[in-house]
Amino acid sequence: MKRTERPKNWAAWRERLHVIIFEADTLAGKTFDVLLLIAIFCSVLAVSLESVQEYQKDYGTLFYVLEWVFTIFFSLEYILRIMAVYQARRYVFSFFGIIDLLSILPTYLGLFFPISGGLLTVRALRLIRIFRIFKLGGFLNEGNLLLGALYRSRAKITVFLSFISLLVVVLGSLMYLIEGQADSGFTSIPRSIYWAIVTLTTVGYGDIAPATPLGQFVAALIMILGYGVIAVPTGMVTAEIIQQEKGAAPSTQVCKACLKEGHAQDAIYCKYCGEEL
Amino acid sequence: MKRTERPKNWAAWRERLHVIIFEADTLAGKTFDVLLLIAIFCSVLAVSLESVQEYQKDYGTLFYVLEWVFTIFFSLEYILRIMAVYQARRYVFSFFGIIDLLSILPTYLGLFFPISGGLLTVRALRLIRIFRIFKLGGFLNEGNLLLGALYRSRAKITVFLSFISLLVVVLGSLMYLIEGQADSGFTSIPRSIYWAIVTLTTVGYGDIAPATPLGQFVAALIMILGYGVIAVPTGMVTAEIIQQEKGAAPSTQVCKACLKEGHAQDAIYCKYCGEEL
Amino acid sequence: MKRTERPKNWAAWRERLHVIIFEADTLAGKTFDVLLLIAIFCSVLAVSLESVQEYQKDYGTLFYVLEWVFTIFFSLEYILRIMAVYQARRYVFSFFGIIDLLSILPTYLGLFFPISGGLLTVRALRLIRIFRIFKLGGFLNEGNLLLGALYRSRAKITVFLSFISLLVVVLGSLMYLIEGQADSGFTSIPRSIYWAIVTLTTVGYGDIAPATPLGQFVAALIMILGYGVIAVPTGMVTAEIIQQEKGAAPSTQVCKACLKEGHAQDAIYCKYCGEEL
Amino acid sequence: MKRTERPKNWAAWRERLHVIIFEADTLAGKTFDVLLLIAIFCSVLAVSLESVQEYQKDYGTLFYVLEWVFTIFFSLEYILRIMAVYQARRYVFSFFGIIDLLSILPTYLGLFFPISGGLLTVRALRLIRIFRIFKLGGFLNEGNLLLGALYRSRAKITVFLSFISLLVVVLGSLMYLIEGQADSGFTSIPRSIYWAIVTLTTVGYGDIAPATPLGQFVAALIMILGYGVIAVPTGMVTAEIIQQEKGAAPSTQVCKACLKEGHAQDAIYCKYCGEEL
Repeated sequence: MKRTERPKNWAAWRERLHVIIFEADTLAGKTFDVLLLIAIFCSVLAVSLESVQEYQKDYGTLFYVLEWVFTIFFSLEYILRIMAVYQARRYVFSFFGIIDLLSILPTYLGLFFPISGGLLTVRALRLIRIFRIFKLGGFLNEGNLLLGALYRSRAKITVFLSFISLLVVVLGSLMYLIEGQADSGFTSIPRSIYWAIVTLTTVGYGDIAPATPLGQFVAALIMILGYGVIAVPTGMVTAEIIQQEKGAAPSTQVCKACLKEGHAQDAIYCKYCGEEL
Repeated sequence: MKRTERPKNWAAWRERLHVIIFEADTLAGKTFDVLLLIAIFCSVLAVSLESVQEYQKDYGTLFYVLEWVFTIFFSLEYILRIMAVYQARRYVFSFFGIIDLLSILPTYLGLFFPISGGLLTVRALRLIRIFRIFKLGGFLNEGNLLLGALYRSRAKITVFLSFISLLVVVLGSLMYLIEGQADSGFTSIPRSIYWAIVTLTTVGYGDIAPATPLGQFVAALIMILGYGVIAVPTGMVTAEIIQQEKGAAPSTQVCKACLKEGHAQDAIYCKYCGEEL
Repeated sequence: MKRTERPKNWAAWRERLHVIIFEADTLAGKTFDVLLLIAIFCSVLAVSLESVQEYQKDYGTLFYVLEWVFTIFFSLEYILRIMAVYQARRYVFSFFGIIDLLSILPTYLGLFFPISGGLLTVRALRLIRIFRIFKLGGFLNEGNLLLGALYRSRAKITVFLSFISLLVVVLGSLMYLIEGQADSGFTSIPRSIYWAIVTLTTVGYGDIAPATPLGQFVAALIMILGYGVIAVPTGMVTAEIIQQEKGAAPSTQVCKACLKEGHAQDAIYCKYCGEEL
Repeated sequence: MKRTERPKNWAAWRERLHVIIFEADTLAGKTFDVLLLIAIFCSVLAVSLESVQEYQKDYGTLFYVLEWVFTIFFSLEYILRIMAVYQARRYVFSFFGIIDLLSILPTYLGLFFPISGGLLTVRALRLIRIFRIFKLGGFLNEGNLLLGALYRSRAKITVFLSFISLLVVVLGSLMYLIEGQADSGFTSIPRSIYWAIVTLTTVGYGDIAPATPLGQFVAALIMILGYGVIAVPTGMVTAEIIQQEKGAAPSTQVCKACLKEGHAQDAIYCKYCGEEL
């Protein structure tokens, strides 16, 4: 009797664990998600502050203790996730499964190898885990709308990015030709391409800036070009958002007679064959 | 008789004071508001110029006198406001009540404590009081339209800002990993996050700029990303403003006579057949 | 006979001069405008290049001769304009009359007074005269459309600029408080306000940049704010241009019965009183 | 017999060559285009990396060999193109014909003349050849849409660019007057115009930045102006894209049966009553 009951308890317990960890609809699940969110946020804050040398000097031990507290907490969470999930393998090799592992691994590796800050800083990337929390609120709708606008514009975006890539390579090479001899930072084509991107996006650091009159003339042309070019993605995204808000996107209805799509939201009859929708 | 009359006069005087100070519809009220506007503006100008060391040296006494003139004027105004308002407590603890107090307090505190410029500069914040003047003109309508567009976009803005925050933390950490060893200013994760914000918003000071080829490559990707990302708030606000101006979106009313739709929100008669709606 | 004919000839000659100089519809007028455009352009180019010290050294005499050639040409043009115009006084004191005078005066003044480059450089402002040429082509329509969009948005633009002005003064003062002690360029409130404008408009020179962690934090907030704020004018202008292209602006028709305006372009009956339009 | 057959073979072979090189519809043509794309990309990558001095030192020989491999490959391609095309002369003097020649010439010239890097860097411009590949995918549609939007806005863009040009010349001259004496980089009018462009496009390198209070004040005004000016191209392009997507604007057709309008351009049957349009 005991032997049959134990598995039963185990299944029930596992079911409960699954609800808490993976479902955000119940109170327990919501509480868990919020706690996790706070833990991730605090842990990233600790990693960030630890990278400031003054703080590292003064509060080194505190950061060390905090890091282990967070690591053990996240390790427990990782183990519980594996236990709660129905197909452990699928979770472990999923995007978030790998991120979860990567967010605890560096601390353990730091035990065995005397590694420099580099690997340890990878811990900051655990902030990516916060994206999981987005299933929490009503954010999904708005986020989906934005993603949808980006997704539908993907063809235009691809063309645009290809065009920008070609443009910066050609302009970068041109500026290397013009400014290469001058002592103005255009020391190689890759650096000149980097400059072209910095300029075309209107970021303009000024670490590399044309010094010769001809270089400044070409740079001015590039900037005015960038002026117009920046208008294109804005226009595309704006048009998408407007279309979307209108709900003017065609309905997903398919005509029963001719099987064609693309009917307006208010259509009663198929515009291709005249059949009632 | 005198005893009953005095309160009567007092009430009438207070009523008049209230009209002048709090209502902008009458000539007296308008004049008061304009005078106050000029006083606030001049006082902020004086504080600003006082912070310039050369002027401070040459005209120090003038600034001192001016400051006291403005402070006494604003103090009188503060006392009159308390007297004129029906519920003094409510005014004192209101947003503008506190701002009004904060705009005169520093000068008085400067009398008793030998305080540095810091506290005195708080006086510049009295410019916030100017917002009160906005009740003056027809500005409110336009301002409300803009605020309304922002307000209705708040869900999208929240998602967008959350996304940007995550992005800059992740990108900042990544750049710290890449550029941390180079002598290019990425000395800590918070500074790298600051750099990521400076870059993504296309401000690009250049006080921190990647120096390694890999760092410049990632920075270039971030800039091109920022190129697209900057399009999103513009698109959202534009869509809101357009929708709003349509307001303007035709009502859903259908004419009883000709069954046509598309009438303006304020239409009383059908614009196609002249029938009452 | 001769005495009466001469005035007649004079009037005809003056008429002809007026057509050539002030009217761009005839071939002669068009040719004159194009020649003038080229002369203005070349003269400004000469002034610009003259300001480059190397060129000034090598070709000083050439620039001197060129300047006098252009000045004499423009002087003749100025005299002819006065002669051709019907009301000489009105032209002389008009906007373009003053600009025309200002574009020749500096060279003559340079004869009598040993003036530095300052006054002579005013000559570059003669480029403003080019705006007169815009009457030439079909540019006017497009220019008017753009100006019209700006004009109809003027109330919103005023609110927006007032808001921006307040924002940069408040933010500038705040940053002066935070960064005033640090050696990062925030030496006075006006300079800090200048920095706030440089940052909010995403120009970002980097000549003044926050150095303290708190300053960088506040600066980051300002930049993200600027991110959203930059969307507002874009949205407003876009909405105006779209509305304009639609011709969706209400018709200028006034109802004969109730005298109300604001009817749609396709309205047949007054939407307020039902009367036929 | 052989003599008649040979030309026949030759014509067939030439036909086949033409299909492979100039038509992207067949598998052979597609493969050729993709291989060419990769070769162009690799060759530009090699030229770019060769310009980095460290790499040049270490892998100089490798780059030399690679360059000759690519040059010979492109030379063969050039010869084959001339052979395959029906009118060799027309191809040789076409835009792409000249680009193709320019992309191989520098390497050969380098054999005979001891030329500096300048001429050799021209090889990077061979990336322009990649544009030919655009005939490959479905990119053309999207690219045409974007180009179409730009093309239809050309009148507005011309007015806008003229206005910007005048603005930067006038503002540049003004700033030269104000800042010319200060040691802040405004050493000549052309440089000041360059600064005005850098500022108005919000690039803001900071290599030239106003130092005097008056200069900073005027610069601040220019930036706020740029704030509004940047909205104009964005608004124009956005309006174009929206109009285009509507394209999409409902047709003006009216249903014969129910007299309703608003049908899509491709509608064959009325969407309200099902009658044929």
